[in-house]
Amino acid sequence: MPDNKLRKMLRTHTCGELRIDQVNQEVILSGWVQSLRNLGGLSFIDLRDRYGITQIAFNMEVNSSLCDKARKCGREFVIQVKGKVSERSSKNANRPTGDIEIIAQELNILNESKVPPFTIEDESDGGEDIRMKYRYLDIRRNPVKDKIMFRHQVALHTRKYLSSLGFLEIETPYLIKSTPEGARDFIVPSRMNPGQWYALPQSPQTFKQILMVGGMDKYFQIVRCFRDEDLRADRQPEFTQIDCEMAFVDREDILQTFEGMMKYLCKEIINVELPDFPRMSYDEAMETYGNDKPDLRIDMKFQYLEGLRGKGFQVIDNAEYIRGFVVKGIESAFTNKEINELTDWVKRPQIGAKGLMYIKFTNEGVKSSISKFYSEEELLSIGNSCSAEKGDTILILTGSKNQVLKQLSELRLEVARRNNLIPEGIFKPLWVLDFPLHEWNEDEKRFFAMHHPFTSPLAEDLHKMSSADNKIIESIRAAAYDLVLNGTELGGGSIRIHDKELQSRNFELLGFTKEEAESQFGFILGAFEYGAPPHGGIAFGLDRVCAVMQGSTTIRDYIAFPKNNMGRDVMIDAPSGIDSKQLKELNL
Amino acid sequence: MPDNKLRKMLRTHTCGELRIDQVNQEVILSGWVQSLRNLGGLSFIDLRDRYGITQIAFNMEVNSSLCDKARKCGREFVIQVKGKVSERSSKNANRPTGDIEIIAQELNILNESKVPPFTIEDESDGGEDIRMKYRYLDIRRNPVKDKIMFRHQVALHTRKYLSSLGFLEIETPYLIKSTPEGARDFIVPSRMNPGQWYALPQSPQTFKQILMVGGMDKYFQIVRCFRDEDLRADRQPEFTQIDCEMAFVDREDILQTFEGMMKYLCKEIINVELPDFPRMSYDEAMETYGNDKPDLRIDMKFQYLEGLRGKGFQVIDNAEYIRGFVVKGIESAFTNKEINELTDWVKRPQIGAKGLMYIKFTNEGVKSSISKFYSEEELLSIGNSCSAEKGDTILILTGSKNQVLKQLSELRLEVARRNNLIPEGIFKPLWVLDFPLHEWNEDEKRFFAMHHPFTSPLAEDLHKMSSADNKIIESIRAAAYDLVLNGTELGGGSIRIHDKELQSRNFELLGFTKEEAESQFGFILGAFEYGAPPHGGIAFGLDRVCAVMQGSTTIRDYIAFPKNNMGRDVMIDAPSGIDSKQLKELNL
Repeated sequence: MPDNKLRKMLRTHTCGELRIDQVNQEVILSGWVQSLRNLGGLSFIDLRDRYGITQIAFNMEVNSSLCDKARKCGREFVIQVKGKVSERSSKNANRPTGDIEIIAQELNILNESKVPPFTIEDESDGGEDIRMKYRYLDIRRNPVKDKIMFRHQVALHTRKYLSSLGFLEIETPYLIKSTPEGARDFIVPSRMNPGQWYALPQSPQTFKQILMVGGMDKYFQIVRCFRDEDLRADRQPEFTQIDCEMAFVDREDILQTFEGMMKYLCKEIINVELPDFPRMSYDEAMETYGNDKPDLRIDMKFQYLEGLRGKGFQVIDNAEYIRGFVVKGIESAFTNKEINELTDWVKRPQIGAKGLMYIKFTNEGVKSSISKFYSEEELLSIGNSCSAEKGDTILILTGSKNQVLKQLSELRLEVARRNNLIPEGIFKPLWVLDFPLHEWNEDEKRFFAMHHPFTSPLAEDLHKMSSADNKIIESIRAAAYDLVLNGTELGGGSIRIHDKELQSRNFELLGFTKEEAESQFGFILGAFEYGAPPHGGIAFGLDRVCAVMQGSTTIRDYIAFPKNNMGRDVMIDAPSGIDSKQLKELNL
Repeated sequence: MPDNKLRKMLRTHTCGELRIDQVNQEVILSGWVQSLRNLGGLSFIDLRDRYGITQIAFNMEVNSSLCDKARKCGREFVIQVKGKVSERSSKNANRPTGDIEIIAQELNILNESKVPPFTIEDESDGGEDIRMKYRYLDIRRNPVKDKIMFRHQVALHTRKYLSSLGFLEIETPYLIKSTPEGARDFIVPSRMNPGQWYALPQSPQTFKQILMVGGMDKYFQIVRCFRDEDLRADRQPEFTQIDCEMAFVDREDILQTFEGMMKYLCKEIINVELPDFPRMSYDEAMETYGNDKPDLRIDMKFQYLEGLRGKGFQVIDNAEYIRGFVVKGIESAFTNKEINELTDWVKRPQIGAKGLMYIKFTNEGVKSSISKFYSEEELLSIGNSCSAEKGDTILILTGSKNQVLKQLSELRLEVARRNNLIPEGIFKPLWVLDFPLHEWNEDEKRFFAMHHPFTSPLAEDLHKMSSADNKIIESIRAAAYDLVLNGTELGGGSIRIHDKELQSRNFELLGFTKEEAESQFGFILGAFEYGAPPHGGIAFGLDRVCAVMQGSTTIRDYIAFPKNNMGRDVMIDAPSGIDSKQLKELNL
């Protein structure tokens, strides 16, 4: 390992490392002025760098010119201080360096600073926009700095884990070929090939498969991907994937390898032992949670509610689909006000429910929005059928199956958020398996790949691939899997097709003509003719992995220089107009 | 560390791991058919994967249908074999698995293969073009596969070294802003901001400086860079840099840190202990080797050749500049034929010398192209002045200083190559220091930054920055440094300017108006107003580091999917025409 005692000219120590053991040592520190306090004959500077904060003391009686110089330092000035480590009389237990201070002997102002446009504190007074414009100041704040450092740890340990298993990190090109399937590509004009364009990769999917055909056996790459989509909150036009592929494996190998990776990352970085990951089919996840990435920290599975139908209540009896869930853990059930608020919430156009039915089991008996149509006994029996007890509330929605599942899924999450039913510091992983291979798109009257066009059907459903019946095609399950942690999809992947005929048939089902398939994916169809091994892989969103491990709800601060919702980098002011000479050279 | 005993379905072992100790074990192997040999009642398949080759034996008498099936396998078929490990009667000492073979019990053809268009051997019969088109087959060959695996090792150990020193890997954006300074940018139209463009970074230079202003202290990134240049041999439009930056350092800190990195990489990966790196100024390198990246494995320093001038030989006496070098180590000096060939070589337009003078010191006395003008004694005295001995030859060029240095530098390397004067397996590192800050461009009548516009002058030359005299400006030395190994520049960097005034003055010297500087680099000039620390950095070409460590002369095979000299990826056929719908969406 390298020599850690490399020469250091501008400092002997960082601002985070001095302790009581170093008292009387002469040291040099460099950093930023976090704050300056003048107390009569004494001045104190809190000096900050990436590693921490150390207090520097200046004494007017001992060295008045030095103290005067210190008093001229504003916030964020860059200074170098030489002095002696000294025990503090009033210690600061909240700070690792809080037992000591530096009695300054020399002070060197390395650079001045204007007054920053917002405070460099954990809780800053700067709004999002101004912090993005001055991102170099924002990064000095602990919450942002710590997230960027955390990301480094996640990437480093990911590489360590995968390398130890024989994965090779192999870089794939960024200037590739545009394919209309999937999201929109960013494209790049080629000067040397007029009229032709490169595309930036949405993922290295085809290249990693080509590497498997090339015998590289185990590939990974922490790699940038690009999608020119209209940006929703927390979407970035460029983002980073942990991209992986293995040859000579089946699904089980991949699940074990990457379950192992998540366990390793959580153990090494946040000291959390993840349990073995439960598994759930896509169908079960949808029926039980209305969602293909259920947050298992929350209970409240969807219930069938036996005994609700057939009691003469038309709304229920005529409903195509009825589901509800039991809310537990709220003191003496919901108040009427809470129920009304939830009803308004589900009726908002974003959710779109017609109304919300409830059955409350209180100390004063059963209260329900449908008590007109059911006896207390009937309601108790419904409650019994789904283990509702005193203090619990059943919330019920009706409508079409898709609507009810979607609306109830949102309601479940909202109820959990409003009532603090999501335990903190808990990690609930899950594999979701057996996704549909295709989704029917009613607008375009054709199938779209649910994962991507290279995903293999499950072996059991392979025979359905030759069917001409859309209902049968729709029922084909994919050898695809998503890794879900606390309700966030961290990664997804599949066993790939490695047979040229099957791949061609899949392109056909997706509405590609032979010519289209050939012109866009000819190279991979060609590769499949020269000994493609069985293979499969997975890709994780690095920012999401970081955010979920730290219980954070936003990925933006894990990115050093994120773009805003218009795809703009407001710090450097990009994109921007371009020199006409440049466009001319590109024949544009 | 992760559990290496993860489940393996399609194989129990790789084709590289079985040894005599495993005899009698039942195993499953999967891989590609390297070759098939039929010897009467026996058939042998050499089965290959990334890890090696294992021989599989099929016996017609024991299992004729299995043997028949094996005989149907062509080269590059993908098969799975179950069988028993057995000691071979005729062992193959050239192969790690050569003591054993697998007596096949089951054979499963996982995929067929057409006959590959070239042989998958260390020495292939395929030309460059066909191997690039079928890169997935080329990658199966050991020479390519091994280079890609080597690159993974270099990247991994680089990360290990830098992380252990507290460097953080921080990703910077790929969609940035175009700047006309430097090479040509690749640009990307923004759909959401019509008429505006992103550029792909030529390097993360400004971002890593911004990260230093942001207090990240030690940054690195193994990062893709893009340059839309006309491609010479061994140049790629996208290439990978090991990009580094440190705050609160001076030049010495950086030299030690990255000398340490190269030593670490060589020790860990190729088990070579590099010596401490000698240092040489740019001026000395140019005067001594005509070259700012001299190959110190070769001797033949340029010599002043005392006693040549003033003897009445007009060509010499009128020459602006004269230099030569002594060739040693060639048996009894050069033959006349060799001298004639070298003379023709230096007179080619690529070199452009008018002629070549020589003085040979042979057993039969001194032979020289200039003996008409010099006595043997005079020639011997010139030889003495530069330690030429019997068997040596002095080669001499005349002309303008720049021409002579450039031509003599090429001649020195050519002589070394022709006469095998470059020792193999030797590593000669060097720091080249004190580059000029600016270069005068006679065409544009302005200075260009020799390194880039953010490079700091040496402290000793700082006072010259305010001069109005171009001669004085030209003499300013930069705090820049190149790391050279065996005549290849592996990396270069500099201490940066961190003062806004100095940076503005430098832009002024480079011919930027205030408005141009502001519109292109306003964000970094702005950042310098908020407490920029002293900082500096370096960047290495990852492919070059790999190639030089392995003594390879080409970087292309270290890149999994390289582009050709027209910037084309011939495997995927990119760049290519684009959907008119896509262009319309981009307002193009």
